[in-house]
Amino acid sequence: MPEPIAFYFDFSSPYGYLATFKVDEIAARHGRTVDWRPFLLGIVMQQTGMTPLVTQPIRGPYFRHDLERLARDYRAPFVWPENFPFHSVAASRAFYWLMDRDRELAVRFARTIYHAYWGEGRDVTKPRQVADEASDKLGVAADELLAALADDSVKARLKDEVDKTMARGVFGSPMFDIDGELFWGCDKFAEIDRWLATGGW
Amino acid sequence: MPEPIAFYFDFSSPYGYLATFKVDEIAARHGRTVDWRPFLLGIVMQQTGMTPLVTQPIRGPYFRHDLERLARDYRAPFVWPENFPFHSVAASRAFYWLMDRDRELAVRFARTIYHAYWGEGRDVTKPRQVADEASDKLGVAADELLAALADDSVKARLKDEVDKTMARGVFGSPMFDIDGELFWGCDKFAEIDRWLATGGW
Repeated sequence: MPEPIAFYFDFSSPYGYLATFKVDEIAARHGRTVDWRPFLLGIVMQQTGMTPLVTQPIRGPYFRHDLERLARDYRAPFVWPENFPFHSVAASRAFYWLMDRDRELAVRFARTIYHAYWGEGRDVTKPRQVADEASDKLGVAADELLAALADDSVKARLKDEVDKTMARGVFGSPMFDIDGELFWGCDKFAEIDRWLATGGW
Repeated sequence: MPEPIAFYFDFSSPYGYLATFKVDEIAARHGRTVDWRPFLLGIVMQQTGMTPLVTQPIRGPYFRHDLERLARDYRAPFVWPENFPFHSVAASRAFYWLMDRDRELAVRFARTIYHAYWGEGRDVTKPRQVADEASDKLGVAADELLAALADDSVKARLKDEVDKTMARGVFGSPMFDIDGELFWGCDKFAEIDRWLATGGW
């Protein structure tokens, strides 16, 4: 049984959102599963010295245009949320708390948050909003999730994941780890597809 | 007759070098020619606040690995030159001086400089080295080229090209302008191929 593809993403990353429209399909085509791993890009950027792509001079307008072009190509609903950049701490903590209980549910939760934010432009920043979204769309007990988001062990769990993600050399969203090979960006999907088909080069 | 694909690159850019192994083939497949446009990435980086990719913390090791992986995929000779980053002013001035005389020769010159630097790791930084390379490999009169490299109008020509390149929104190497649409990076080739095949989306 081949290893899962590790899929690193930040909920505040529009390219991470778009990647969710491709990653499972490509993995499945090659008999792989996907291990979804949200992390906090803002923490990593403190190490890399980078800033959010779409706010960068000269580069920002390109990335905005590229994202809209890619969204059309992927047939992904896509809007520019008002509250950008998104603070993804609550959603990321919720993801791992759910994952420890039900991996499949956690992935559906990730898609739900991404859709609310990048597909509909709604604010899903605060713990209350994250809990309501999980409750409304997935039937998760909102009070139980809210309590978890304030729990020190849940906070520590995300911190540990972010540390491990940085130690792996991940610096962007999306990034993919395939049998130890890192690939950065939605633009790598064609290469990833060939890599998986051929066993690499 | 469809418009040529504008191919923006810096001679000091390893991704720009690798792009030369693909861009003509993809363009030709769709009945397009390629308009080669060297520019000075260092000048643009003063505006974007970026630094050379391979020297960036955390990101650097990824890009080094990615470049070697891409070079194997493209079957491109690839070494890490000792004098990096490369000062590409002389080579870029020489390119436009040649282009105004013989467009085809200018493209062969660009391939020659790229091969010397990224394929063999040789220093082709200084005017004398550029002139010798053009003379040895392409039969260009070295003294004439050397004189041109010191000429104010030749210097102004490159400055004008760099200004126009920045005004176009180009910030990286390689970048491609296809009928007004910009695409950044070797990782865009699969998308560019589909864009040209379908007429875009």
